[in-house]
Amino acid sequence: MNVVVVDRYGGAAQGNSAKSEGAYRNMFVSETNFMLANSSIEWFQYMQDDLGYDLKLHNVGYLWLHSRGQFDKLKGGYNRMAEQGVDIRYLEGSEINDCIPDLVTHFDGDEDAELMNLQNVDYGVYGKKCGSLDADSMVKSYEKMFHKLGGETLYNVDVKELILKPEEDLEIPGEPFIWQNKIIKGARTSKGEITSDTTVLATGAWASQLLEPIGLDSYIRPKKRQLFAFKDPKLKGLLDVKNLNTSGGLPLTILPTAGVYLKSELTEGSLWVGCADDLGRKFELEEDAQPESDYYTNNIYHVLEKYFPCFNGLRPLNSWAGQYAINSLDGSPIVEPHPGLIYVGGASGSGIMKCDAIGRVAAGAYAGLETVELFDGSKFRVSDIGITNRSVKKESMII
Amino acid sequence: MNVVVVDRYGGAAQGNSAKSEGAYRNMFVSETNFMLANSSIEWFQYMQDDLGYDLKLHNVGYLWLHSRGQFDKLKGGYNRMAEQGVDIRYLEGSEINDCIPDLVTHFDGDEDAELMNLQNVDYGVYGKKCGSLDADSMVKSYEKMFHKLGGETLYNVDVKELILKPEEDLEIPGEPFIWQNKIIKGARTSKGEITSDTTVLATGAWASQLLEPIGLDSYIRPKKRQLFAFKDPKLKGLLDVKNLNTSGGLPLTILPTAGVYLKSELTEGSLWVGCADDLGRKFELEEDAQPESDYYTNNIYHVLEKYFPCFNGLRPLNSWAGQYAINSLDGSPIVEPHPGLIYVGGASGSGIMKCDAIGRVAAGAYAGLETVELFDGSKFRVSDIGITNRSVKKESMII
Repeated sequence: MNVVVVDRYGGAAQGNSAKSEGAYRNMFVSETNFMLANSSIEWFQYMQDDLGYDLKLHNVGYLWLHSRGQFDKLKGGYNRMAEQGVDIRYLEGSEINDCIPDLVTHFDGDEDAELMNLQNVDYGVYGKKCGSLDADSMVKSYEKMFHKLGGETLYNVDVKELILKPEEDLEIPGEPFIWQNKIIKGARTSKGEITSDTTVLATGAWASQLLEPIGLDSYIRPKKRQLFAFKDPKLKGLLDVKNLNTSGGLPLTILPTAGVYLKSELTEGSLWVGCADDLGRKFELEEDAQPESDYYTNNIYHVLEKYFPCFNGLRPLNSWAGQYAINSLDGSPIVEPHPGLIYVGGASGSGIMKCDAIGRVAAGAYAGLETVELFDGSKFRVSDIGITNRSVKKESMII
Repeated sequence: MNVVVVDRYGGAAQGNSAKSEGAYRNMFVSETNFMLANSSIEWFQYMQDDLGYDLKLHNVGYLWLHSRGQFDKLKGGYNRMAEQGVDIRYLEGSEINDCIPDLVTHFDGDEDAELMNLQNVDYGVYGKKCGSLDADSMVKSYEKMFHKLGGETLYNVDVKELILKPEEDLEIPGEPFIWQNKIIKGARTSKGEITSDTTVLATGAWASQLLEPIGLDSYIRPKKRQLFAFKDPKLKGLLDVKNLNTSGGLPLTILPTAGVYLKSELTEGSLWVGCADDLGRKFELEEDAQPESDYYTNNIYHVLEKYFPCFNGLRPLNSWAGQYAINSLDGSPIVEPHPGLIYVGGASGSGIMKCDAIGRVAAGAYAGLETVELFDGSKFRVSDIGITNRSVKKESMII
């Protein structure tokens, strides 16, 4: 087959993928998401251990921190995770501080904390098959494999629009007419027309821009997410946590309040901090999303510093922003075939960690298969993440 | 209670509702859609017969025309309709022409028809509890009832944005912060701020414009639909069909090809013709959508004139366009509660015919009810058309 990757940037995945946190987890309640992520993680491990690509995988884990009240509500979801094979360890009381001495777990009597609705940390839920990878290294590895298979890449080529044609072109002005069957035949780009039997549209936050002009829905809206990176001797305890993982790096840790999360980035010995924006953070496509310094100083900082006083007075060394392509309806990816087109999108911020499986499903959609085998051997019904016969359990654990 | 309707236009429903075809049907496969439409239709009949409001209801019916192949595929859907209480009559062979002598049912040997993929008419599926109403008369009636109940209307007031505030306002610059619970407290309008305990957003195609800036998804995209009206002695046969309904008006009739449909408009003795745009018709919010004359002459006309030669040479007397608010995922309405806000939308072109029931569900969401009783006595679970616990069977009969 003749496969060409077209990208507007100078290399693959230099858009929002490059801005990603690069975290991965198999901790999903929805069976769909679990299957997609779990098998992709096994594939990543295989790529690194057996195929020799350095993805900078750091198996630091994920750690969700909860108050008693929160935990009681989420317990059912964690039980479902465990049933479908997620390797979970529950931490309780002093165990949490034994692992992470820098963490403040209780705010009793702290008026500021009360004003800020800060929840105590009574429980920790640690996922083992989770961690951190380097998005850029991974994409470079995929690119290498793709070229080896004979794939072609066209960078710095901007896709302007999809080409919609009648299935049988009569070459009459005004085509396609309403009585003609229509098919996508490729794309008009900054370097001319590229025609193809099948066009796979996987443009993340930019999906609507290309689909809407031909009348197709992307089901997603773009939303900015920001990351702030820190490196400071005061944070060394967070690169040396105990009894959780072998590397000592702080797991991707989700605070019980305001959607603030952080993780160790062992490759560079730093800590990355983010926040799950929701109500109040606009949906909008931004060509060059920027971090906002006051979003850290006036918002994240006050929460973070309460739970982790070691951040007191620290300013980020670096910060950047990217955009999630959010499918608000069920938070799960979409692989939807149209005539001549396969739309792949809606990963809602967890696309990298599911990318291998999503790719296999897209390949299955191309081949007209009912079911595909994922890397871990599990069977996945292609139509489950399509639209027409969509069958996705709603995901409750979205960050 | 103190209820205020705010509308940017000089009266209620002067936006896309005013451009509507005003057709109604209970012919839905999805139980959700059936329940919403069926009970609303009973309410319309009650409004007109018992409450004395003239909605210009014309019970002309709906008539879907199919080739044998199409019918075989759709039979299961029709059976489900019948099971849930849709009153259906099947027409076959010469029966169809007995009712509508003007209709050409077979194109054997017609090369143009073959080129245009025109399907023969082998079957007709007639729905009895369907027809036509006047959207403007209905809205005026609702307005009268609303005023009688003490409701207030503010017209020519343009809503600029929703007001998002912290639940507990600390009056610190920069609020709402990430650690504050957020709530919608009303809207900023061209006539100043209007605050409210609960804001109901029911702005159809304009929903995204108001929701996206505060980070909420509307799940809809706007798409233009056009209508072309005809009045001509050559069409008199279509105002005098036999053995279908008591008025003789052509039912809303859907041709087997290209999504072309037409109906009689008995109030003015005219025929209205439209086409269900899909692939190829862009999604885009237009402030003042316009009909395209070549869309009729180069597209609809050629199909229409084959099935109904009485349209030969006729040009529309009048034409107009409006926008559907399309929920592409399941084609069904959405009533989604947020803090301080209830979003009502996504009716996908069949909002008027479901409006009574949707209003009752929205009222139930406001009151925090699990279930509401619709006008026909059926019980409807409010969360079924919400997002969090959405439970909607996908609709296959969308025009």
